[in-house]
Amino acid sequence: QNRGRLLISCNDKPGIVAKVSQWLFEYKANIVESNQYSTSHTDGLFFMRIEFECPDFQKRYSELKESFHEVASSFKMDWQLQSASNRKKTAIFVSKEDHCLQELLWNYERGELYTDIAMVVSNHETMREFVESKGIPFHYIPVTKETKPEAEKAQLELLESNEIDFVILARYMQILSSDFVTRHPNRVMNIHHSFLPAFVGAKPYERAYERGVKLIGATAHYVTDELDQGPIVEQDIERVDHRDSIEELKRIGRSVEKSVLARGVKWHLEDRILVYGNKTIVFD
Amino acid sequence: QNRGRLLISCNDKPGIVAKVSQWLFEYKANIVESNQYSTSHTDGLFFMRIEFECPDFQKRYSELKESFHEVASSFKMDWQLQSASNRKKTAIFVSKEDHCLQELLWNYERGELYTDIAMVVSNHETMREFVESKGIPFHYIPVTKETKPEAEKAQLELLESNEIDFVILARYMQILSSDFVTRHPNRVMNIHHSFLPAFVGAKPYERAYERGVKLIGATAHYVTDELDQGPIVEQDIERVDHRDSIEELKRIGRSVEKSVLARGVKWHLEDRILVYGNKTIVFD
Amino acid sequence: QNRGRLLISCNDKPGIVAKVSQWLFEYKANIVESNQYSTSHTDGLFFMRIEFECPDFQKRYSELKESFHEVASSFKMDWQLQSASNRKKTAIFVSKEDHCLQELLWNYERGELYTDIAMVVSNHETMREFVESKGIPFHYIPVTKETKPEAEKAQLELLESNEIDFVILARYMQILSSDFVTRHPNRVMNIHHSFLPAFVGAKPYERAYERGVKLIGATAHYVTDELDQGPIVEQDIERVDHRDSIEELKRIGRSVEKSVLARGVKWHLEDRILVYGNKTIVFD
Amino acid sequence: QNRGRLLISCNDKPGIVAKVSQWLFEYKANIVESNQYSTSHTDGLFFMRIEFECPDFQKRYSELKESFHEVASSFKMDWQLQSASNRKKTAIFVSKEDHCLQELLWNYERGELYTDIAMVVSNHETMREFVESKGIPFHYIPVTKETKPEAEKAQLELLESNEIDFVILARYMQILSSDFVTRHPNRVMNIHHSFLPAFVGAKPYERAYERGVKLIGATAHYVTDELDQGPIVEQDIERVDHRDSIEELKRIGRSVEKSVLARGVKWHLEDRILVYGNKTIVFD
Repeated sequence: QNRGRLLISCNDKPGIVAKVSQWLFEYKANIVESNQYSTSHTDGLFFMRIEFECPDFQKRYSELKESFHEVASSFKMDWQLQSASNRKKTAIFVSKEDHCLQELLWNYERGELYTDIAMVVSNHETMREFVESKGIPFHYIPVTKETKPEAEKAQLELLESNEIDFVILARYMQILSSDFVTRHPNRVMNIHHSFLPAFVGAKPYERAYERGVKLIGATAHYVTDELDQGPIVEQDIERVDHRDSIEELKRIGRSVEKSVLARGVKWHLEDRILVYGNKTIVFD
Repeated sequence: QNRGRLLISCNDKPGIVAKVSQWLFEYKANIVESNQYSTSHTDGLFFMRIEFECPDFQKRYSELKESFHEVASSFKMDWQLQSASNRKKTAIFVSKEDHCLQELLWNYERGELYTDIAMVVSNHETMREFVESKGIPFHYIPVTKETKPEAEKAQLELLESNEIDFVILARYMQILSSDFVTRHPNRVMNIHHSFLPAFVGAKPYERAYERGVKLIGATAHYVTDELDQGPIVEQDIERVDHRDSIEELKRIGRSVEKSVLARGVKWHLEDRILVYGNKTIVFD
Repeated sequence: QNRGRLLISCNDKPGIVAKVSQWLFEYKANIVESNQYSTSHTDGLFFMRIEFECPDFQKRYSELKESFHEVASSFKMDWQLQSASNRKKTAIFVSKEDHCLQELLWNYERGELYTDIAMVVSNHETMREFVESKGIPFHYIPVTKETKPEAEKAQLELLESNEIDFVILARYMQILSSDFVTRHPNRVMNIHHSFLPAFVGAKPYERAYERGVKLIGATAHYVTDELDQGPIVEQDIERVDHRDSIEELKRIGRSVEKSVLARGVKWHLEDRILVYGNKTIVFD
Repeated sequence: QNRGRLLISCNDKPGIVAKVSQWLFEYKANIVESNQYSTSHTDGLFFMRIEFECPDFQKRYSELKESFHEVASSFKMDWQLQSASNRKKTAIFVSKEDHCLQELLWNYERGELYTDIAMVVSNHETMREFVESKGIPFHYIPVTKETKPEAEKAQLELLESNEIDFVILARYMQILSSDFVTRHPNRVMNIHHSFLPAFVGAKPYERAYERGVKLIGATAHYVTDELDQGPIVEQDIERVDHRDSIEELKRIGRSVEKSVLARGVKWHLEDRILVYGNKTIVFD
C-alpha cells in the first residue's frame, strides 16, 4: 500500500508544519490524519504524527527518506518515516491467567491489531494448547529465583533471533531485569492491575480491598527500570462496593485489565504513542 | 492579544495544509492548536481549525484577511478568520428551572466561558432576582398560545438590537418558530433532557420511566426547524435503576443536563464545532 | 449444597418480611442476601429475593415447599423456592458474529455463569468448529423466508426435548415468531445493538452514524411479541466521535454488547431479575 | 411525620431479621426500605438499615425505643432508632475555593440535602458575602501556624455551642488536629482531590500531572487521625489527556470533587453509611 507515517519531535518554532506539509505536497501525498502537540507555545517541545497516502510510497521509500532528512536537519528533528503496511513483530509474555491473552488474540483474529504475533512466551505450560491451536508458537521458559538470569537470556535470544519489535506483558507475573528493560525502551508494555500510582507492586486487588476503595482500575504502561513507574499509556476503572469480595474485585478487574491493555497495544502498533520524559502523548 | 483562529471547510485535495501553513509562516504565526478532519481521503470534504499566535494580529487583521482570501479562493474554501479575543455576545433563554442557568453563570464567573452574557430572557419572572444580582439584564417576555408571535417578535428585536451572536436554550420549555430558528442557523443551542433520538419531544423523563430504561441521558444540539432533530453537539448519560421514581430521574438528570450543556456551550464559544449536514465535527 | 433462593411478589402490606423471616428462622436458615422493593409504600406491589443457607435444604426441599405454601397463601403471593445449586439449562442462538458467544463461553468456562449450556443453535455453520471444540453440541438450522415456520418448529423441538430453561439470542439476527416468544415469557434474552428505545429494529449502527450521536449503546432485554419493546434488563454506552466510521462504531459497539449481555445473563441465571409490567427489577 | 430509621450492627446469626421485622410488625410499621450486609455468613458481622412508616411514630418514640432495647440486647446489637424527620445540624468548613460549597448549598436549597446548615466556618473572608446572602451565619477564624491551637479551640466551641452533628470539609485546606478529629469519629467528612490512595497529601493535581495519569479522581472520606487514611465513602474519576495543563486538571477536577462530596454528604445525612474497621458500607 501507499500509506506512510511520519513521527516527529523537536523544539517548537514557527514554520515546522509549513515545511513538513510542503514536503508532503511535493510528493503528491494526501494527509489522512495529522496530530500535533506542543508542551508550550513559546519555548516548548513539538510533537507530530502524520499519516498520509503517497503514490508509489513503497517504491520511492528511500528517496523519500533521503529527501526528508534535509527538512529534518534544519529543525534538528528526531523523526521516523514508516510504511504503515509494515507490521511490527510482537511477543506476548503470559503466566497462568489468560484473560488478557484471549482478548489480544480475539482482537488480532478480527484484524483489529495490525501486527504479527510471532510468539507467546510463558513460565508455565498452562496456555500452550490454546496458543498452539491458533497457530502461534509457544515457548515455555520456566523461571525460578535461581534460573532467572538464564531464563532471561533464553528470552532475549528468542526476541533477537525473531526480530521482535514489541513485547506485551499480558499478566506475566515476573519482574524483568534492568538489563532486559533498558534494551527495549518504550517497547515493553505491561498491564498493572490497579489505578497507578495507587497500589504499586504486588497484590493490588488485595490491597484495594483492604483500603476499601470504591473504584478499581487498571493501567497499561511502558516498563522501565523502576517497578510500575514507567510512562502511563492508558487507564480505566470500574465501580465496586462493600459487597465485593477480593474474588469479585479480581473478576471485575479482569474485564478492565483486558480492555485497557488492548487499547494501549492498538495505539502502540499504530505508532500513536510518543514518550516524553516519563509521560506519554497519545494521538488517538 | 495576538491570538487568531482560522476555520476552513472545502473539498479535500493535496496541498491544503501546505498552503495554509506556509501562509501562517509568512506572518510569523506560531500554531497553538491545529485540528483537521476529512470525511473521505479520496473525494471527501476537508475541515480545519487552527489557533495561532501572530505578532500584531489585531493591527494587521484586515491585511491578513485580504491575503488569506487568495489562499482560500484557490481551494474554494468556506472560511472565517477571527480574533480569539473577540467575545461572542450571548443570550440565555430560561423558563422556571434554574440548574442549567446556574451552571452556565457559575462557569462564566470563573472565566471558563469566554463570552459576554448580554441578557437572560424568560417567560417567567422566577429567575429575575438571581440574574439581576449578577448584574445581567433580565427580560421577562410572557408567552401564551395567543401571544406567541408577538412574543417572538419582541425576542428577535432584543437579539438584533443587542447584536446577539449565540442563543442558549437553558431549559426554555417553549418551541421556537421556524422563522426564529432559520434566522440563526447553528447559533441556537438547546439542551434536551434525554439521550436523543430516544424520547424526542415532551416529558422525556416520564417516558424514560415508563419504558424502564437503565440509563438516562441529555443531549445538547443546535436547533433546527424539526423538533429535536438538529445536529447533536454533545451527549452523556447517568445510570439509574428500578428504585428511582420520576422525581429521582429528574434530579439525576439535572446534573447530566447542566454539564452536557456547559460543555457544548464552551465548544461553541471557542469555535470548536463545525456543522456538516446534520452532524457536528467537534474539535475538542 | 444447602443454599436456597426464595422469590416473592404480592401486594405490599405490613408483616410480610416478619412472616417470611420467621419462617426461615424456624428452619434454622441463615439469610445470605436479601433484597426487597415496593412500587409504593401504601398500596404498591412488593417484591423480594432472599438467598439463604439452610441445613439439609435438599433433603427437606418438599417439606419446605409445603410449609411455605401456607405463608404464601395468607399474602396471596406469587412465589418460587429454588435450590441455588440447580443449574438452568441454556441454549444460545447465534448467527455469524461471534463476540457475544465468545464472551459468554469465556465467562462460562471460568465458572462465572452458573448454568449448563446445553447447545448452540445457529442459522449458519460459521461457529460450528469453535462451539464443538468446547464440547458443546451445535445445531445448524438454516432459516429462509420460506422455511422459517419449519425452522422454528425444529428449534422448539430441540428446546423442549432438552428441557431448555433459558434462551440467549447472542446476536441471532432473526426475528422469532410470536408463537415462539409467548411460549417462553421472560425466558428469551436478546442483545440489541443500540441504546433502546433509540434505533429500534434493523441496522442501528448505520442509523446512529447517520444521526451523528456522540454515544453508542447496547441493550439486553427480554423478548416479547413487539420488536425491541420487551422489558429492559441492562444497558450501557461507549463514547464515539465524528471520526468514527460505521465500521468503527460496530467495533466499539461489540465490546459494549458483549459485556451488557454477559451481565444480563448472569443476573438471569441467579434469579436476580423480576419482571413487573414491561419493566425489570434487578436485585444486583 | 411517621418515618423512622433503625440502624443495627451485631454478630451475624439466624433469627435477627425475623426478630426485628416481627417487632416492626407489632407496631404496625410498614418497611419502606431495608438493606443488610454480612461480612461472612458463618461468623461475620451483620449490618442493617431499615426505614419504615409507623403510625404515631413521634408520639410513641420513647415507648418504641424501650421496647426495641429488649430485642437488641438478646443479640448484643449496637443500634440507633431515629426519627427520619430529625435534621442533623451541619457546619461547612471552607477556605477560598467555592465550588464544593456552591454545590452543597445549591442542593440544599433544592431540598436534596436533608439537614440544617447551621454555619460556614472559614479561615478566609472570601466567602462571607455569598454565604450571608443565603442567610447562613459565617464565622471567620483565621489560622496561622502560631494561632492554630487557639483557632481550633474557637471552632470547637462553635460546634459545641451550636450542637453540630456533622462537619463537612469542603476544600478546607487545613489539617485538623488529632484532638479535633477524635472528638468527632465518622462525623467529619473531607473531599480529597485525588483518587486515594494515590496522591495522599498536598498538591495532588500537580503530582497527577507529573505522573502523567490518564484519569483524575476525587475521594470523599471520613477524617481520622492519619492524613487521608480515613474510611472512603465515595470516589469518582474523569478522563484527562496529555494536552491538559495543571490548570485544566484542576478545572476538570472541581466538577468531580463537588459531585463526589455531594453524594457522600447526602448518604451521611440519610444514615446510609456504616463504618466497619477502616471501610464503609454504603446502603445507597
